[in-house]
Amino acid sequence: MNIILIHPSEEVQGRVVLRDRRAKHIRRVLKGTPGDLLRTGVIDGPTGTSRIVAINDDEVVLETDHGGAPPPRPLTELVLALPRPIMLKRILSQAVSLGVARIFLINANRVEKSFFSASLLEEAVYREHLLHGLEQAVDTRLPEITVHPRFRPFVEDVLPGITKDVPVRLVAHPGGTAALPEVVPPPLREKTILAVGPEGGWVDFEIGKFAEQGLLPFSMGPRILRVDTAVCALLAQLDLLRRFPVPPGNP
Amino acid sequence: MNIILIHPSEEVQGRVVLRDRRAKHIRRVLKGTPGDLLRTGVIDGPTGTSRIVAINDDEVVLETDHGGAPPPRPLTELVLALPRPIMLKRILSQAVSLGVARIFLINANRVEKSFFSASLLEEAVYREHLLHGLEQAVDTRLPEITVHPRFRPFVEDVLPGITKDVPVRLVAHPGGTAALPEVVPPPLREKTILAVGPEGGWVDFEIGKFAEQGLLPFSMGPRILRVDTAVCALLAQLDLLRRFPVPPGNP
Repeated sequence: MNIILIHPSEEVQGRVVLRDRRAKHIRRVLKGTPGDLLRTGVIDGPTGTSRIVAINDDEVVLETDHGGAPPPRPLTELVLALPRPIMLKRILSQAVSLGVARIFLINANRVEKSFFSASLLEEAVYREHLLHGLEQAVDTRLPEITVHPRFRPFVEDVLPGITKDVPVRLVAHPGGTAALPEVVPPPLREKTILAVGPEGGWVDFEIGKFAEQGLLPFSMGPRILRVDTAVCALLAQLDLLRRFPVPPGNP
Repeated sequence: MNIILIHPSEEVQGRVVLRDRRAKHIRRVLKGTPGDLLRTGVIDGPTGTSRIVAINDDEVVLETDHGGAPPPRPLTELVLALPRPIMLKRILSQAVSLGVARIFLINANRVEKSFFSASLLEEAVYREHLLHGLEQAVDTRLPEITVHPRFRPFVEDVLPGITKDVPVRLVAHPGGTAALPEVVPPPLREKTILAVGPEGGWVDFEIGKFAEQGLLPFSMGPRILRVDTAVCALLAQLDLLRRFPVPPGNP
């Protein structure tokens, strides 16, 4: 927990009373005492520092000061074939720590249909994993998660609305021949949408439907990765492409 | 398990008898029957295909054909401040799936000393996690793991022997100012050594000792990542730098 995140409704006249795992973290890990300053932030809002004004076994009271600007919203949108719940848990917090604006959990030919009945797909359950990711990465921007149990309506009806202001559109595909730097020459500055398939990959029909929406297939190379490793690797690779300096002579 | 890995001593006159989790995988996941061809490989040796000649509840007998060349040895060496055992488990198989030649598990100021007594540091225990990574990535090259419970003797006495034929030397450091593409302009083709610190990062003394051995610090950006996420992200980023085409006009 590298930042204590506070829901806007918890802040009353510049004070917050914490009683949950955040209070426990302040007591046990940070060993906070009255007067200490902590890095805090408002969910989907600004960051700042808060001072401990009271601390006991039941609660921690903070006096907040959130003068900082909210962190910039990440530029990457993730379309993910729904993985098994235990893997999704890890992917959610890891993807959020690496930075994603939205996550679309979709169906695909090789997705096991039973995964769509997982309790993890309820906001009250997955929200915790998103918060872990934000707390790790010192971010406040909670990504939006949506679940799409039918592939074709997602690609035909929902995806066009997403891609219309997203110029860089990618689909990871073991059958792809181009490497990522050939499809996206750096520096990458634009909004990007990345689709990652299920174990076993997308089927040809799915790649074809993505192509209709302008998503370019690329290959990650000869090594087969687990989906959680692939999501982490790909988000990190897009981040690297964003961190290239603008070549000299270019605007 | 995208490849069945066989120890050289198990292969007798072109036949292998499997009785462990590999046999179970062939029966339950692959639903193998006599005559089926499976992708197999010899640990640290070539890959190929093997035919199921007999299968029952106790054992699976394969007739092997390992005519392929061994996969190329990965070009990245990982120096890792020893993480907590539960995290190390995941890092080992994930790093191996992404491709590392050797892993040096070392001490650092912010490493908890008790981690060095973990049973996971015994070869018989960690080997399983390495094999999982190879089986996932369709590789046969088992990386060498060594444990170095003292930082200074490692950096002063062991590291020079490692780096002497490794031209690209990097240490991930939140305090670094340069981004990875500035320190390593692509395409990357050379052997690379990458040092990744503990939660909380390296201390200045450690960065100084690495600098004496030519390891350049770089920053991953403003987001703070868990060590397992950072290792995955960094290995993927080095891999991306390796996948850049040679610029036109260059040899």
